[in-house]
Amino acid sequence: MRIPHLIIKKKLNKELSTEEIKWIVENYTAGKIHDYQMSALLMAVYFNGLSDRETVDLTLAMRDSGEILDLSSIDGIKVDKHSSGGVGDKVSIVLVGIIGALDIPFAKMSGRGLGHTGGTIDKLESIPGFRTNLSIDEFIDNVKSINVAISCQTSNLAPADKKLYALRDVTGTVDNVSLIASSIMSKKLASGCDGIVLDVTTGSGAFMNDIEDAIELSKKMVNIGKILNKETIAVVTNMDEPLGNAVGNALEVAEAIQALKGYGPADLMEVVITIASYMLIVAKKTDDLDKAKDLIQSVIDNGSAYNKFIEFVERQGGDSSYVKNYDSLINASIIREVKAEKSGYIHRVNALNIGNASLILGGGREELDDIIDSSVGIYLNKKVSDSVKTGQILAYIYGNDEKKVNDAYKEVVTAYDIQDEVIDKPKMIIDIIK
Amino acid sequence: MRIPHLIIKKKLNKELSTEEIKWIVENYTAGKIHDYQMSALLMAVYFNGLSDRETVDLTLAMRDSGEILDLSSIDGIKVDKHSSGGVGDKVSIVLVGIIGALDIPFAKMSGRGLGHTGGTIDKLESIPGFRTNLSIDEFIDNVKSINVAISCQTSNLAPADKKLYALRDVTGTVDNVSLIASSIMSKKLASGCDGIVLDVTTGSGAFMNDIEDAIELSKKMVNIGKILNKETIAVVTNMDEPLGNAVGNALEVAEAIQALKGYGPADLMEVVITIASYMLIVAKKTDDLDKAKDLIQSVIDNGSAYNKFIEFVERQGGDSSYVKNYDSLINASIIREVKAEKSGYIHRVNALNIGNASLILGGGREELDDIIDSSVGIYLNKKVSDSVKTGQILAYIYGNDEKKVNDAYKEVVTAYDIQDEVIDKPKMIIDIIK
Repeated sequence: MRIPHLIIKKKLNKELSTEEIKWIVENYTAGKIHDYQMSALLMAVYFNGLSDRETVDLTLAMRDSGEILDLSSIDGIKVDKHSSGGVGDKVSIVLVGIIGALDIPFAKMSGRGLGHTGGTIDKLESIPGFRTNLSIDEFIDNVKSINVAISCQTSNLAPADKKLYALRDVTGTVDNVSLIASSIMSKKLASGCDGIVLDVTTGSGAFMNDIEDAIELSKKMVNIGKILNKETIAVVTNMDEPLGNAVGNALEVAEAIQALKGYGPADLMEVVITIASYMLIVAKKTDDLDKAKDLIQSVIDNGSAYNKFIEFVERQGGDSSYVKNYDSLINASIIREVKAEKSGYIHRVNALNIGNASLILGGGREELDDIIDSSVGIYLNKKVSDSVKTGQILAYIYGNDEKKVNDAYKEVVTAYDIQDEVIDKPKMIIDIIK
Repeated sequence: MRIPHLIIKKKLNKELSTEEIKWIVENYTAGKIHDYQMSALLMAVYFNGLSDRETVDLTLAMRDSGEILDLSSIDGIKVDKHSSGGVGDKVSIVLVGIIGALDIPFAKMSGRGLGHTGGTIDKLESIPGFRTNLSIDEFIDNVKSINVAISCQTSNLAPADKKLYALRDVTGTVDNVSLIASSIMSKKLASGCDGIVLDVTTGSGAFMNDIEDAIELSKKMVNIGKILNKETIAVVTNMDEPLGNAVGNALEVAEAIQALKGYGPADLMEVVITIASYMLIVAKKTDDLDKAKDLIQSVIDNGSAYNKFIEFVERQGGDSSYVKNYDSLINASIIREVKAEKSGYIHRVNALNIGNASLILGGGREELDDIIDSSVGIYLNKKVSDSVKTGQILAYIYGNDEKKVNDAYKEVVTAYDIQDEVIDKPKMIIDIIK
């Protein structure tokens, strides 16, 4: 096989064979195909797409490019969860307590944030002492002992995806639904789970701005799961305004703890309970959605979800006094109020602007090796459909640098759109694809 | 400016500005844009094309990436000629004698061959002693003294095009009409000529297999010339069977000499005289095509075109005894006959097969640094429309290696298609774009 020939084949909109895709992924990972040839092929894929068969082949080839975690020593159905990312997305942190308390093994490899979306690993690291670089043995052992573990994705999990994603990022070839689907699914499949629940976000703060695109991506991923005999359910959720009120690493952990104690924001709880319910269904705890919701509510109400989270934090080396007294997590030196300049109803809180504000404050990464400041962020006092009067506080900005706070302030002001008309609360669960 | 942003812009089918194209070419030439980003951009250009304005901007940016030859010290209108390549294309060699004898300055930078198409430089080098690496001063001086000079393209002529073409060649992004047009025209414009006649070949042995594509390319190039105020005429010629009877370096020089002496093959002469006529028109020797043809015929008939060629060869260090006794150029150790296996009329002599046969024999390059054997090639005894009887000789193969001759033999046999029906001679001049 010759790579120029395969580039031209895809360019002419012909289907690449299973063998050809395998050969491309193997040789690219091994450094035998040049980046400049791979990027030309990726651009041809952007224009001509991949068939379902090609997408599955690409997913498998990337899964097989490195280690595949063997979770078979853990009893029960291992359900993984993945979010396509958003602003204020602390769902996984809340799920740790709920899923663990319901005695379902939750062995989650997770990533760091990049750009305006945060990562679960970064958020958890705002708890002093919390370790995210578990060895495979420790990771599996923790799940066996307490049902839950979250660790950094090891570099040898789907290395082909890692290399390809880095190339796509700098060559304008990120936004193809087959490439996104195979990237996500290859990592999940390499993580060794038995079933997957996907939170596919859509809106201004999401990777997929468009609902139709999010649904298409969901269908692609569910289809990959189906073909590979791993039950996969996608929940398409609204990420047009940030999820919950808190954005920023420590602020989000604090809000997740509140949620586990039973007083999380309504939009966050709706997403958490929906995702958790489908995880229960995939784990075969029940086949009834209402029953699942009751089970989840019960572990929140009786404190076992919160207690499981404390156990989880301690197990991974974190100082649980910060969980019990979560206000101590929040220690930014500057707190700036953002006030409404007019009265009315909040029609929009643009999640991208809020995400950018958090990035400006130092809460996120522009480059992979940037160091983040976990204390900064934004707390949204008003969200879509809330009424507000001139001078009332819309949001608080938490920062440690006057100039950055000023710059973030502009983003937060831009994010808010206040109109005279009453508006309904946005629908959080847009679609379920299974 | 950021290159990922510009890649995405073209991917979304938006026009790049003059400044953006200039910035891309400058930074790519300087090594500040990665190959893997440029190849993604090129693939996006393949799918979305370039507007006429973008094509002109790209041409100018590539022209300006290196040296621009200053031919202003040479009197008269300097007309350049370019062929998009073919099999058996010795037109430029014949033109040296004709154009030089008609007192038109012909300062031609030329290239080497790659793949199944030969290069004028390689062909001329089959004359012992002939030098093609003239200094700029010697090149200009020769034109001033004897009207004609042919030299290797200096590496500093449109270096951006050189770098881009090498990338396109290995990333499946060669076949875009705007990229081809700007590549050809940037080099021609950097060569400092006042006007250009383009021989745009089409058919099995050409870069452009399809007539429509060849016409589109011609229009693009003529349009670039028009916008830049350099008179440009494109002659679309037939390259479905090889041009003339000889294919291979020394064999083609011998046939070019025959043509200058007045007994060249009819198809070759038709192309030579048409191209030469438009060169006379661009050079303002006459504005009448019939008058131009008469002038050309007269310098062939009176021997001055042949004498000019002798003068040219001697001036560039060649041993003119090989021109005067051109049979001495042909010294392959093996001559194999290819005989007709059936009687009928020749319907096709596939130029690509014949070009490949020449390549197999060692007459061309598969890689840029391959060394070629100028003595090998194919002489076509029968061409399209000729009648043939079983056992008659279709072609002679000239080689120096039994195995290669055997492999070439198969290609030559495949090239020939003999049918029962009479067929007309192919039309050589398909269109004139001006």
